[in-house]
Amino acid sequence: MIDVVILGTGNVATHLFRAFSQSPGIRVKQVYNHAHKSLEPFKNEVPTTTSLQDLETADLYLLALKDDVISHYADQLKHCDGLVAHTSGAVSLEALKGPARRGVFYPLQTFTRDLKVDYSKIPFCLESSDPEDMQLLQELAHDLSAPAYEVNSQQRKQLHLAAVFVCNFVNYLYTVGQNLCEKHQIPFKILEPLIMATAQKIQQAPPRDVQTGPARRGDSSTIKAHLDLLEEPSHIAIYELLTRAIQSEYGKKL
Amino acid sequence: MIDVVILGTGNVATHLFRAFSQSPGIRVKQVYNHAHKSLEPFKNEVPTTTSLQDLETADLYLLALKDDVISHYADQLKHCDGLVAHTSGAVSLEALKGPARRGVFYPLQTFTRDLKVDYSKIPFCLESSDPEDMQLLQELAHDLSAPAYEVNSQQRKQLHLAAVFVCNFVNYLYTVGQNLCEKHQIPFKILEPLIMATAQKIQQAPPRDVQTGPARRGDSSTIKAHLDLLEEPSHIAIYELLTRAIQSEYGKKL
Repeated sequence: MIDVVILGTGNVATHLFRAFSQSPGIRVKQVYNHAHKSLEPFKNEVPTTTSLQDLETADLYLLALKDDVISHYADQLKHCDGLVAHTSGAVSLEALKGPARRGVFYPLQTFTRDLKVDYSKIPFCLESSDPEDMQLLQELAHDLSAPAYEVNSQQRKQLHLAAVFVCNFVNYLYTVGQNLCEKHQIPFKILEPLIMATAQKIQQAPPRDVQTGPARRGDSSTIKAHLDLLEEPSHIAIYELLTRAIQSEYGKKL
Repeated sequence: MIDVVILGTGNVATHLFRAFSQSPGIRVKQVYNHAHKSLEPFKNEVPTTTSLQDLETADLYLLALKDDVISHYADQLKHCDGLVAHTSGAVSLEALKGPARRGVFYPLQTFTRDLKVDYSKIPFCLESSDPEDMQLLQELAHDLSAPAYEVNSQQRKQLHLAAVFVCNFVNYLYTVGQNLCEKHQIPFKILEPLIMATAQKIQQAPPRDVQTGPARRGDSSTIKAHLDLLEEPSHIAIYELLTRAIQSEYGKKL
């Protein structure tokens, strides 16, 4: 049984709390937040506290906190015997200065508060300089049935950055598609199968090898027609920039 | 039984030929291409011709051709009794000037030559000014078990444009992710579940409502850190432009 104290009550903290609570190998002993109000949704399910002095003894203190306060909280936990690990993609292991035992337990996923999550599909990026602590983090991921990868701080930062491109920016391009559909009374769901197929395709072949579209094939008359159809200046700028990037990747000029 | 003559031997022609051949309600009578060599892969399975004079009688002549030659070929088919339909997202119905009966049978999908396709997931965008011809196109889609939508030329052009954003540009962002991973010895497959989850999420909620990431939450220190990590000028330009676009969509300035 792994005893865990969770610090934080945001999206990641809430999702991990739910997942830990359903895992027989993990016991959440306590949830901490500095504000009483944020603890309200947890109060009926688990002991909570607003005081770092009152933290329970645990195997793992999980800092599911905003990037810019992780160091500060780690300093406050320097007398803890347990492993202190954060869940951030962008913060290095070394930022955990205070505690003797430190680690990273970073779920590479997009969490939306009310959407369910399948943990067997979430890669956890693990980091620790101590083999036993690494083993504890491996067990934690294993108890969630989640795939785990050992990833150092430098690689994790690159993954976090790559995630912005393949998740956040991709979702924004979906929104552009939604805007174009709405403006012309087309149901957006017509695009859903194409969106799924585009994502599924890269499970079969690397994206660099399956690029299609007017930019890839150097079809300048379609590109011109598309630029004429677009009305929003920001959509035009995105179309032009990504078309140029694709053409330069594949050796064709606009 | 719907008798079809396919004109063209490219990606769309090849995929539709395979799908039609497996459908009991459809018979492909002939495949046309102006070049002998392009017909080679079809020769053992179906009669072929390089001469428009030798086209068989059919219910449907499907022009699965490059956009810029569709009008030219339609002119040559003006004496055909059958319905003449093209498969292009960008060409209007009116571009089919010659034939008396004309239509559009546009599969909204990304076809890669050797990857399998599930037709039950491909929306076909149908257009015709004649109700009986529309019914023929509906039957054709139905025989492929494919969902069908009536979409006019103006809407189809917008869908074709939207598809560039949600498919071609999205795939390019996947490639940026692949580049970042390769440069830092990270297996790209760590990103695959995130890519799938991002695509799946919009089946549950519209993309505009589920935008996440540093740009969305106005996290300027992460944005700065990411820009410092990026090395390729084109990646920096894309990061800056999409971040600005997201911030202006959600009312936060960089």
